[in-house]
Amino acid sequence: MIEGLLTKVRNQKPLVHHITNIVTVNDCANITLAVGALPVMAHALEEVEDMVKAASSLVLNIGTLTPEQVEAMIKAGKKANDLGIPVVLDPVGAGATPLRTESTWRILNEVKVSVIKGNSAEIGVLAGAGGEIRGVEAVKSNENLLTAAKNMAKDLKSIVVITGATDIVTDGHRVAYVDNGHYLMGTITGTGCMLASVIGGFCGAERDYFKASIAALVVFGVAGELAAKRPEVRGPASFKTCFFDEIFNITEEKIKGGSKYKIA
Amino acid sequence: MIEGLLTKVRNQKPLVHHITNIVTVNDCANITLAVGALPVMAHALEEVEDMVKAASSLVLNIGTLTPEQVEAMIKAGKKANDLGIPVVLDPVGAGATPLRTESTWRILNEVKVSVIKGNSAEIGVLAGAGGEIRGVEAVKSNENLLTAAKNMAKDLKSIVVITGATDIVTDGHRVAYVDNGHYLMGTITGTGCMLASVIGGFCGAERDYFKASIAALVVFGVAGELAAKRPEVRGPASFKTCFFDEIFNITEEKIKGGSKYKIA
Amino acid sequence: MIEGLLTKVRNQKPLVHHITNIVTVNDCANITLAVGALPVMAHALEEVEDMVKAASSLVLNIGTLTPEQVEAMIKAGKKANDLGIPVVLDPVGAGATPLRTESTWRILNEVKVSVIKGNSAEIGVLAGAGGEIRGVEAVKSNENLLTAAKNMAKDLKSIVVITGATDIVTDGHRVAYVDNGHYLMGTITGTGCMLASVIGGFCGAERDYFKASIAALVVFGVAGELAAKRPEVRGPASFKTCFFDEIFNITEEKIKGGSKYKIA
Repeated sequence: MIEGLLTKVRNQKPLVHHITNIVTVNDCANITLAVGALPVMAHALEEVEDMVKAASSLVLNIGTLTPEQVEAMIKAGKKANDLGIPVVLDPVGAGATPLRTESTWRILNEVKVSVIKGNSAEIGVLAGAGGEIRGVEAVKSNENLLTAAKNMAKDLKSIVVITGATDIVTDGHRVAYVDNGHYLMGTITGTGCMLASVIGGFCGAERDYFKASIAALVVFGVAGELAAKRPEVRGPASFKTCFFDEIFNITEEKIKGGSKYKIA
Repeated sequence: MIEGLLTKVRNQKPLVHHITNIVTVNDCANITLAVGALPVMAHALEEVEDMVKAASSLVLNIGTLTPEQVEAMIKAGKKANDLGIPVVLDPVGAGATPLRTESTWRILNEVKVSVIKGNSAEIGVLAGAGGEIRGVEAVKSNENLLTAAKNMAKDLKSIVVITGATDIVTDGHRVAYVDNGHYLMGTITGTGCMLASVIGGFCGAERDYFKASIAALVVFGVAGELAAKRPEVRGPASFKTCFFDEIFNITEEKIKGGSKYKIA
Repeated sequence: MIEGLLTKVRNQKPLVHHITNIVTVNDCANITLAVGALPVMAHALEEVEDMVKAASSLVLNIGTLTPEQVEAMIKAGKKANDLGIPVVLDPVGAGATPLRTESTWRILNEVKVSVIKGNSAEIGVLAGAGGEIRGVEAVKSNENLLTAAKNMAKDLKSIVVITGATDIVTDGHRVAYVDNGHYLMGTITGTGCMLASVIGGFCGAERDYFKASIAALVVFGVAGELAAKRPEVRGPASFKTCFFDEIFNITEEKIKGGSKYKIA
């Protein structure tokens, strides 16, 4: 199902416009380049519409949000909607503070989002299944999460991605389970943000966002597994170096050999 | 004195809320994870009180301050005080511009700070012993610094940490000297910021902040020494990778074997 | 022509004040340190004049500009002009949005810039030769670019640097061509920003900015070539680590052995 998508990304080099947080913005830019797309970061209200016009996708990440930044996100998102450019939303820390939860809803109410990606607590809170979050880490999630996420996907007409040991992708009808990944990916900050950038890259090249999201998760997870096997890895920082390199060196063949997903 | 504190951090995984600069924020998040705590970065006035409620400690770093950010620091700091959550202040560049010196005093006047950590020029200027700073680097310090720092600690009822070849920790009465560390730590930007994050991690798990600060300095310095010995190190960037990995791989045993500190 | 300039930087340790973007700010700080200068980042309107007073050069980078940040750049730039401190401008993405193009012109109209450095599209747009930019990447440039750049240099009384496979430096009369560099430098984000920091370092130590710019380009490119040869390099992230280390380890002898430039 995901064959050839990486090649599409690398041939088209989609421009991924990010409005994102200050913590992981450099990693998001580098991972976008590594996967074969082009990053651009621009958040001024005065230019987000102009920048998104040139983009193939828009990634919104509320990791260090301010109300002004949310305004810029909505402005850029509406313009993206007008132009048919896919929007990926990463509601970092939704559920941790009212500002984060309410801002996510403001964005979802004003912008048609193509993919919303979060951990089990973030999506759990937003989908109405509950969940517990500490800072930006999921602590507890609910077993009704899948049903709630499917309903959310239907309501929003979006792809919902829930990251975890097994990642879940749903369009409200179909559900994909992706079993790729490695625990070391959780030892560095911003893995989730980087994943959103990679989803942005794939959605910029492939208009079936269900497929694009699965491909992004598989590529991300397979690269993480390959990196974890490298002899250079002695901890999170050496793993991170290897992980970026493996994303850069990933091939259709490696994806085929390493992918572990099923669609139900 | 510091035995078992690392284990406490790793068992409790304290959430360290940062309001910090844009230069080293990614490193601060990663070092917090590496030592075994959880980082969260949030600076919007609209959410800092909500975020700090969930935190075990609060780290304030003025490295790229603005007056608005200082407002957020004070708001978060006051809430932390109300809840008995320790506050660590890193007055980056105090003495270099009036804005930095005055903002540090605004914070110290409005927020009860548990630990204030700076280099010899920053603490020298704040403690009234004088000192010369160029950008954010200490150029000259005064021999009366220790006395001034002890008085400052008494006045503020805070722990004062002065970093240097030999680090100094004082509560105004006791003084600890920590001789761990390596010159390569000064070849990368943000070592001081990262140290503040690690102090935040330890203060989040151990309410004796004198002990917590010493433990953080020792862990930080021993990891730096171990990293410097790695065969992979060829300069600042490879050292940095090894340093983060050594922080992740540090153990009570390595600390015991490597710690060099005395209390006077 | 560039002999001894690296040694000057390392002896003088010029303080390079940056007002720059949130994407690559950490890399800019680290490369400044690696080459032997001192970085400081400060963007608050309330302190930029005070900070620039202590600096040896000022680097302005509009990578994630806002109108407020441009105000700070102009304020700092004017003070730098008053004090005879060189100003390096990196007009990231000029031509991509009206905000970027207009802000670049606002800066150029209000501040005397010593060096302006961009890729062929950025300089092409600003010099009136045209060019096509996608996000912040040059897509197409014009063969009249050199003539236009020379005129721009004369008009602005600035050094104009155009980066590319062969870098061009002109003061409007002389033209230098620098052939150092490696394709891997384009696989990581922010190489251009880092180059501006290194130019800032050299301009802080050498008042002949034509020479300083050439030296910076050569050092940057030779280090990139040396890094690319390292056995550790497996992709962009391992290359980046080696690149920073090679900048740190560069010597006058390595520069002499590796430099490829001519002046026409």
